[in-house]
This record gives sequence, C-alpha cells and structure tokens, in this order.
Amino acid sequence: MPLLVVGSIALDCIETPTAKRDNVLGGSAVFFSYAASFFSPVRMIGAVGEDWPQQHTKLLETRGIDTSGLQTIPGGRTFRWRGRYLPNMNDRETLEVHLNVLGEFQPKLNGTHRDCRFLFLGNASPVVQLSVLDQAKGAELTVADTMDLWINIQRDELGQLMKRIDGLVLNDSEAKLLAGDENLVRAGRAVLAMGPKFVVIKKGEHGAMFFSEHEMYVMPAFPTPTVVDPTGAGDSFAGGMMGHLASLGRFDAQALKEALAYGVVTASFTVEDFSLDRLASLSRHDLDNRLTEYRKMLSF
Amino acid sequence: MPLLVVGSIALDCIETPTAKRDNVLGGSAVFFSYAASFFSPVRMIGAVGEDWPQQHTKLLETRGIDTSGLQTIPGGRTFRWRGRYLPNMNDRETLEVHLNVLGEFQPKLNGTHRDCRFLFLGNASPVVQLSVLDQAKGAELTVADTMDLWINIQRDELGQLMKRIDGLVLNDSEAKLLAGDENLVRAGRAVLAMGPKFVVIKKGEHGAMFFSEHEMYVMPAFPTPTVVDPTGAGDSFAGGMMGHLASLGRFDAQALKEALAYGVVTASFTVEDFSLDRLASLSRHDLDNRLTEYRKMLSF
Repeated sequence: MPLLVVGSIALDCIETPTAKRDNVLGGSAVFFSYAASFFSPVRMIGAVGEDWPQQHTKLLETRGIDTSGLQTIPGGRTFRWRGRYLPNMNDRETLEVHLNVLGEFQPKLNGTHRDCRFLFLGNASPVVQLSVLDQAKGAELTVADTMDLWINIQRDELGQLMKRIDGLVLNDSEAKLLAGDENLVRAGRAVLAMGPKFVVIKKGEHGAMFFSEHEMYVMPAFPTPTVVDPTGAGDSFAGGMMGHLASLGRFDAQALKEALAYGVVTASFTVEDFSLDRLASLSRHDLDNRLTEYRKMLSF
Repeated sequence: MPLLVVGSIALDCIETPTAKRDNVLGGSAVFFSYAASFFSPVRMIGAVGEDWPQQHTKLLETRGIDTSGLQTIPGGRTFRWRGRYLPNMNDRETLEVHLNVLGEFQPKLNGTHRDCRFLFLGNASPVVQLSVLDQAKGAELTVADTMDLWINIQRDELGQLMKRIDGLVLNDSEAKLLAGDENLVRAGRAVLAMGPKFVVIKKGEHGAMFFSEHEMYVMPAFPTPTVVDPTGAGDSFAGGMMGHLASLGRFDAQALKEALAYGVVTASFTVEDFSLDRLASLSRHDLDNRLTEYRKMLSF
C-alpha cells in the first residue's frame, strides 16, 4: 500500500559531545521516508532550495522512494537546522534555525499523491497540515506529528486538526504542555480526548506510549550502547510504524501495536550513526532480527 | 524461603506539589519488607529510637514480618528524612536528613537471621554492608543497594562489596556516576564488570534495566495515572523482586526476569499513595492481576 508523507527536508549541522557534522541530510520527511521504505512504497512531498545537492535525491530514490513531489524553489535555500546534544544524548538545544523555503511552502498534491490510503503529516504548522488533509481525498489513515511551537501559537488550528486525524504523534514534553499535566498517563488521555482516535507519545531514550479508547501501553526503547546522533529518531519511529501499517493495509489494535514495535526498532538503528548513515547500511532482515530480539526482551 | 533484609527505618516528611505528610513510616527496610511479605516470609533488621511509634511495628507484624531484629536504641531518635518532589514527581530534593540512630548502627545477626538463604542489603555504608555479609553465613543469593554518597566517599569499600555480592541494584544517575558514562547500556556493563553477577538499574518512572553476562533487557514501569508519592518505590521494587525469588527458592535467568516484573508491578502500587498506604490495601491477588496486565501490555 503506498504511503504519503509531507514534511520538512533539511540540511542539518549536528554537534554531539564527541563529534560534529555539517550540512548532513535531515528533515522529518527524509527520515520518515527512508525508514518507511523498508516496509512499503513511499511517496514524499517537500521543498528544497537551489543549494540542494542532487545526490540526496538519488539516495532516496535508491530506496524506491517516489520523489516526484520534491519541489525545488527557484532562488530559494533549503531549510537548515543547527543543534547541539547535551552529554545525556537525550536533550538538545537548537543553535540556529533558517526556515528558508520551508517558511512559505504550500504543499500541492497530484493525483498519485491523492490516491494514497496512508498519510503522514510531518511536523508543520497545523494550517499547512489541514490544507494537505483537504487535498488527500483517498487517505483512510491519517497520522500527524506536531511540536511545542504550534501548541503555543496555533492551538486553535491544532485543535481543528486533532478532530480530523486518526493519530497524533508527539514528544513527552509536548504532550505535557498540550494537556497541562505532568503525569504522562493523564496527559495522553487528555490529548486523546481532544479528538484523535489514538495518541503516541515519544519518550526518546525511554520509548513510547500508546493511547486509544480501549488501550494504553508503554514500549521501552530498544537499548543500544551506540548512541551517536539521536536526530531523526522520532521521524524514523513514525516511518517504521506507518510503513508497517501500510504494508499490512490495516490499522486494527494488533497491527498498531506491532507497528509501534517496528517504530521502536527502526529508531534504535537511526541513533547509531549520523543522518541516514546507519539506516543506509541496513536490510529489512536486520530490522526483523532486532524486532525478534525486542519481542524476546519483553517476554517473561 | 525466608528472606533477610538489613536497612533503614525512617520517619519521613514528604512534600509533593499537591500534598504534605509529616512523620510517616518509611525507610528501605520497611518498604522492602512490606513489599516482599506478599511473596515470602521476611526477617528484618534495623534500628529505631525511643520516639518510634509501636503501631508501626504492629503494622509490619500484621504481614507476618519477623521484627525480632528491630532494635530500639536507648536515648536515641529514629532516622528522619524530609524531601520535596518536583512537579514531574520523578525528581526530588532532600530538605533535611537526621541520621540519628542510623549513624552508629552496627547490625548484629542472630541464628535465625544467619540461616536465611536470601539476603538484601538495603542502602547503607559499604562497610556496614560488608560486616553483614561476613555474618550472613547461610546466604546463597545476596543483593545490595547503594547510593551516590557511597560512590563518592567509599568507592574502594563499595568495590570490595561488589566483588562479593550476586546482584547490585542502583538508580540510573548512580550507575552513570559509578561508571563515568552517560549511556546506560555501557554504564550497566561497566558496573557489571566491577564484580556483581547481575546489575539492576532503576529508572524511576521509566522502569528498570537488567544486566548479566549473557543478558541485557529493559522493562518499562507499569503506567499509572495516580502518582501520589514515589518514596519507597525503589525499595518496593527490590522487595517484590527478592520476595518472588525467595518464594521460588531459585534465581536462574527466567526467575530473575519474572522477579523484575513483579518488582515493577509492586512499585507501581507503592507510588499510588503515601508511605505504605497503597500496599496496605492490597492482596497478593491484586499484584498477580497487575502482573497479568503488565505481561499483556508487553506482548505483541
């Protein structure tokens, strides 16, 4: 089942306590697409500037990702983010953000995009996300990400979005902010009551929580001794999750739980190197092997 | 199988963002014993002062806990701790500590104590823990807790202890401090290399990690919307864990994993009220029911 993602495409500058990388490939649509491509065909929509290195597009295409929705804005520059990770490798600070072409980007879906039954709205203004939702006539499962910025400055629009999507994926700190509650169980339930049919709270190195009307559960992160760069872990998680659902063509409770597990496992690889480097070294077999290990780890 | 615990007995003053309790029953030996008593007979060693309310001893005895090792120090006062929880209910600050009788306490084991095959050394100076170890001739499984204070001021003695115990239980921040590594997977392995046959890292609201020569796994905390007072959660975790092992009379890999799960579940009840209040409302049946729920939560 083809899966459509609309999100950011970035050139990232990353500082960790032990290393530094400049202008590496990043962005929510990039991590999501690459991760999901192990499971399902992916179509991607995003904007880049004239500074965009064509080899990045080629890298995405080697995984069969449909990049026909990748738009180069004349005279524009690609979105750039510079961040620094604290020694715990879980918290980070943003040093610089240049929205560039992302600031004015209005995604337009073509016929192939509109046919997709599975849609992921990467983090963007809820106004932009709503406009994509209006165009995505064929979408049967719609999941969106968001961030603290939109919770703070476009809460009404986010509220409209939440009433129209199936799933919302957000960080623990964002869930607490949105719900106004420091207890994650209560916060997750409060966000669920705002409209989505299910809510997934990402807890970084501590895993993820799932909430729906009838279910609530926690899945720990897959423990890895090699945490090189956590950038993109959350979007890889969503990519593994949505990719698995699209491959099954269904999204019942059992499919969703298995999908979360695939998300956890996919993200655990992403953090083991910069940018897409670790994911690029993988086969689907590696993901399945780690899923088996993860399943064994959680049974007693 | 009887289980012996040596640890602190306290009168706690607790402040949370929404409530406050003065002089409630606490201490590592208390939480551990009460939690373990749902699984196995428990013998407890500790010191109190003349200010100790006898009804606390009675409460422990209603659970069949052998309090013959509870020593009242003439002219002494009971150990007191005053702490305040931050709004996240996971971090806390110590406002006051009065060691009182705990400062000079030298635990003495009688014949019944020395016969116990299962021993838990609650957090205390490694020197005191080593002296208990010397006396506990019948102990076949010895597990100790420790804290940042001893890592900082008695690291050599802690090193000697670690070479003689089977298991070490400690918090995530303490494991990082002891190993000098911010990555918990590497930190756990480094602590394991210091001597114990297994290491359990407690991660508060995020659960626990287990390390042995052949195994490493994470178990998330059981999610509860009702976090009233996290005091004693770690000792209740250890009590549930050791209690289950003592009830089985063995400590192979499978028994240890199930024991950790019982520890998680027991701790999840402790935090739902102040002091022993929530545990005191439970039957073994409640613990088993939540374990079943927990097992279901982790299978996919």
